[in-house]
Amino acid sequence: MDLERLKQQMNFLHEVDKVKAILRKTMLFHQDRVENDAEHSWHISLMAVVLQEYSNEPVDLLRVLKMLLIHDLVEIDHGDTMVYDKGAQQNLEEEETARRIFAMLPKEQSAEFLDLWQEFEARKSPDARYATVLDRMEPVLQNLFRQGGTWPKYSITRQQVIGVNQWIALGSQDIWDYLEEQIHQCFDSLDKK
Amino acid sequence: MDLERLKQQMNFLHEVDKVKAILRKTMLFHQDRVENDAEHSWHISLMAVVLQEYSNEPVDLLRVLKMLLIHDLVEIDHGDTMVYDKGAQQNLEEEETARRIFAMLPKEQSAEFLDLWQEFEARKSPDARYATVLDRMEPVLQNLFRQGGTWPKYSITRQQVIGVNQWIALGSQDIWDYLEEQIHQCFDSLDKK
Repeated sequence: MDLERLKQQMNFLHEVDKVKAILRKTMLFHQDRVENDAEHSWHISLMAVVLQEYSNEPVDLLRVLKMLLIHDLVEIDHGDTMVYDKGAQQNLEEEETARRIFAMLPKEQSAEFLDLWQEFEARKSPDARYATVLDRMEPVLQNLFRQGGTWPKYSITRQQVIGVNQWIALGSQDIWDYLEEQIHQCFDSLDKK
Repeated sequence: MDLERLKQQMNFLHEVDKVKAILRKTMLFHQDRVENDAEHSWHISLMAVVLQEYSNEPVDLLRVLKMLLIHDLVEIDHGDTMVYDKGAQQNLEEEETARRIFAMLPKEQSAEFLDLWQEFEARKSPDARYATVLDRMEPVLQNLFRQGGTWPKYSITRQQVIGVNQWIALGSQDIWDYLEEQIHQCFDSLDKK
């Protein structure tokens, strides 16, 4: 065994623990607190396993899971940005963190993770498009299950929710059809208040 | 699309959110609080990806990840039990929860998850043995990185740590060799205090 190699990998696995401190903007389904990136990554990975049949295109589930398990590591240095606020600055910061953190691994693993993360961000493959379905769907579901959840708090409108999330349909038309109807029902009910 | 089927799956994915409230006995690497089951499941899934080369036997990584993503759902109803305390009663309770929670899914998914969970618990396949390496290794690492962490608090001895964790070697001799040496160094240093 190459002990130096194992130590590199262990140091990486120690470093990534920090995503457990990166807080998101949406609340858990069953507790009155916001979620952190590690909990989110676990939940959407399980979602990917359960909902694979709804992907528009055939996917390699193992690659999808790898993408989802690593996709938020890039927030370790600068925190989470709400999807409605994300701009060029955040993208640059995430790219920087991706390079720093994946470089902790042995060379070929580092290259594999950086490629997977870039593929996920670019959403140009069936695997990346399906991975994005879950990443986007979870906060939408959290807010739906909480009668709008944090949408009113951040003054997010129906048009924004639809606009930002509608390309879930690029990965799964079925799931988007389901969510879109629920989003309208939710905002119809908020509008009546 | 079969809407009833999708709703069943969504209800399952809503229910499993509860593992985010199941607190474990070990502390995070980078924060002074205990970990919850969702964070743990994410972390050991990523560990499984990074450390696959150290498995004694070839494994199907996708099956390993499925096992790790679902293995702690059985704690939703009764909480986490420290590995040093686990007895027949806990095993019965977990079996009961497994049957309840997986039954929320469509039949063939329910059967797949129950089989995977039972395979993991029985540790009788290469995939299950490798999955167990990660499940056991994480709390050991957490305590090692914290100069013994919660071992002194719960009066866990060197012999207990070695005894309970030594069959990590059944899944990965390399990782156990690495951990065993670190465990001895850790207790040597605790003994001097």
